[in-house]
Amino acid sequence: MPELRKDPLSLRWVIIATERAKRPSDFRPEPEAKSGGFCPFCAGNEDKTPPEIAAYRERGSERNGAGWRVRVVPNKFPALQIEGSLNKKADGIYDWMQGVGAHEVIIESPQHVTSYAGLPEPAVQEIFWMYRDRLLDLKRDRRLKYGMLFKNVGLSAGASLEHTHSQLIVTPIVPRTVNFKISSCREYYRYHDRCLVCDMVQQELAQRSRVVMETEEMVAFEPYAPRFPFETWVMPKAHASHFENMQRKGIEELARTMKEVLLRLQKALNDPPYNYMVYTAPFDAQEMEEYHWHIEIIPRLTRVAGFEWGTGFYINPVPPESAAAYLRETAV
Amino acid sequence: MPELRKDPLSLRWVIIATERAKRPSDFRPEPEAKSGGFCPFCAGNEDKTPPEIAAYRERGSERNGAGWRVRVVPNKFPALQIEGSLNKKADGIYDWMQGVGAHEVIIESPQHVTSYAGLPEPAVQEIFWMYRDRLLDLKRDRRLKYGMLFKNVGLSAGASLEHTHSQLIVTPIVPRTVNFKISSCREYYRYHDRCLVCDMVQQELAQRSRVVMETEEMVAFEPYAPRFPFETWVMPKAHASHFENMQRKGIEELARTMKEVLLRLQKALNDPPYNYMVYTAPFDAQEMEEYHWHIEIIPRLTRVAGFEWGTGFYINPVPPESAAAYLRETAV
Repeated sequence: MPELRKDPLSLRWVIIATERAKRPSDFRPEPEAKSGGFCPFCAGNEDKTPPEIAAYRERGSERNGAGWRVRVVPNKFPALQIEGSLNKKADGIYDWMQGVGAHEVIIESPQHVTSYAGLPEPAVQEIFWMYRDRLLDLKRDRRLKYGMLFKNVGLSAGASLEHTHSQLIVTPIVPRTVNFKISSCREYYRYHDRCLVCDMVQQELAQRSRVVMETEEMVAFEPYAPRFPFETWVMPKAHASHFENMQRKGIEELARTMKEVLLRLQKALNDPPYNYMVYTAPFDAQEMEEYHWHIEIIPRLTRVAGFEWGTGFYINPVPPESAAAYLRETAV
Repeated sequence: MPELRKDPLSLRWVIIATERAKRPSDFRPEPEAKSGGFCPFCAGNEDKTPPEIAAYRERGSERNGAGWRVRVVPNKFPALQIEGSLNKKADGIYDWMQGVGAHEVIIESPQHVTSYAGLPEPAVQEIFWMYRDRLLDLKRDRRLKYGMLFKNVGLSAGASLEHTHSQLIVTPIVPRTVNFKISSCREYYRYHDRCLVCDMVQQELAQRSRVVMETEEMVAFEPYAPRFPFETWVMPKAHASHFENMQRKGIEELARTMKEVLLRLQKALNDPPYNYMVYTAPFDAQEMEEYHWHIEIIPRLTRVAGFEWGTGFYINPVPPESAAAYLRETAV
C-alpha cells in the first residue's frame, strides 16, 4: 500500500510508492523514447489494460471489447489505491496516512493518435464529458477530497505512452497548490467582493494583448505572469467554480477552444512536450462565489533548475504578449 | 530591463527577461549536451567572463588575472540587474516592478573539474566562505530582500556549463517558497515554543533510519517526505537561522559534510544531475528563534509531470529509509 507523508516545512504531501520501490541502479539519466511498437491503449488491445471503469461505446458492444470511443481504466501502476481506510496517524512530529485514492487513465481515442487536437469536435467533446462523469462519480466517495485531471504529452513532460490519454488522480487531501489558489481567491473576494478570476478575465478581454482566442462562453489567454514560455490558460468567461457542473454548451465550446489552442501550440512550437491541469473546486465544496475553475497548459520548453525549485520564482524569456501574438498569427 | 510580475492566483513572481526574449523557433525540444571545448570558467580565460566581483587569490595576483582559487563574476545573461529602482506599480489588477537584483556566478575552482566533491577540504571550505561573503555584502543593499544560493549540475538539472560553479540570485522580494517555510515554522513555534527544524533534527538523530552522516555540528539526512528519490538535506544540529552567520568550525564541518554527501550521491547514482539550494533567512530578519537554515539537495532522477505541477504532491518510488541505508553503505 502506498503511503502519504507530509513535509512539515513546505506542507507538501508526498506519495511514497513503497510497492514499486526502486533500487538506485534502476535510475538511468534519460529513459529511452518509445515510439511505435505495441500500444495497450489501441482498439483491439482491451485485454492488455486493467478492466475498464467506464466507456462510451457503440450500442451492443461489450465491456472490455472493441467498439468504444473514450475508455477509462485504472492506471496499471497506480500512485494511490482505492481500497482501505486512511488510518491517519502521527509519526513523531510528522503526519502519515495510507495512500488511499484513485488513479485512472482516460484513453481518448481508439485510434493511435498522439493528440486529440486533430480529432473531430464531437470526439473531443466526449473526452470532456468523460472528465465530468469521472469527477461526478468519484466525488461521491466521502474519503476523497480532490480530483486532479491532467495530461502529459511527450517524454520530457512525463508521458510514458504516446497514444492520446489523460489521467485523473483523486487524493484524500486537498492539494496545497489548490489550497493556495483558493486562499488567494478568498482574500481577494473578502477585499473586493468580486471573484479574482472573473476580474482577470475582464482585464484580459479589455486589454486583448494576451488573448489567444475566445468563443461565446470560453476564453484562452497567456497569463500576466506565466512561469513558462507559451503557458496558456483556458476558462469560462462567466463565473463557475466546478468544472464538473458544466452544461452542454460549455462542453462544446471548451472542446472547440482546447482543440484550437492545442493545434496552435503544436503548430507554433513544432509539437512541444506539454502538460495541462484542470483546476476544479474541492469535492466537498458547494458552488463557490470566490473560486473559478480553469485549465493551465504548460509547454515544457525550458528546464527548471535550482533557482526555480528553491524559490518558486520563474525566469521566462518570452513575454506573454509576444507569445499570444505569435499564437494568434499561427495559421491552423 | 527585466520585469517582475506577480501571478495573483499562485502569488508567484515571474521574471520576464524581455531583453533576451526568444522567438518560438529558438526552442528545440532538447538542447545539445556540451562537454569539452572552450570553457570560460577555466584559469587563463578570465577575460571571457564579465569583470570579477570578488576572488580569493594568491598574494600579488591581479584582479581578472590568473592566481585565484574561488572567483565570483556577474552572470553573463543576468536574470535581474543591479542598477535602477523598483518602480513598483499596479497594472490593472496585477502587480509589477522592475527586475532589480543581483545574479552572480561563483566559480569554485580554477581547474576544469565537474564537482567540488573531489577537491581537498580547504578548497571546499573556501566555496562556503565565499557564499558567506557574497550574502553579507549584498544584504547591505536595502532594495534587496533575499539571497538564494543554488547549484545546477548536469544538463537536465539546468546547467549550461559543466565547470563546477554555483549561482546566487538576489531578489527584491522574499520568494514565496521561503515565505511558506517561514510561516510553517512560525505556526509550529507559536504552538510548541520550539523550532520545527530543531525538532526534525532531534527526531532524525533519535530514529537514525534516515540519517546519511553527521559531524559534531552538522547532519545530513533524507527528509521524512522527500519529493525526489535520494533527496538529502544538510543543516546545523544547533539552532541557527542565518547561513551567513556561520563561524569557522561550522564552515569546516559543512564543507566536510557536503563533500562526503555529494561523493556518496555521485557514487551511488552514477553522477546524477542534481540541484541544491541554500535556505538562509531573509535579509532584513534579525536572528530568528523559529527559522533554521538548511540545504536541500535534489538529484534529478524522475520527471515532473502534470500531477506534480498541478498539485504540489509528489510521487516518490524510493522510501527515504531505503535511500539513506543505500547512501550509508556506499563506499567512498
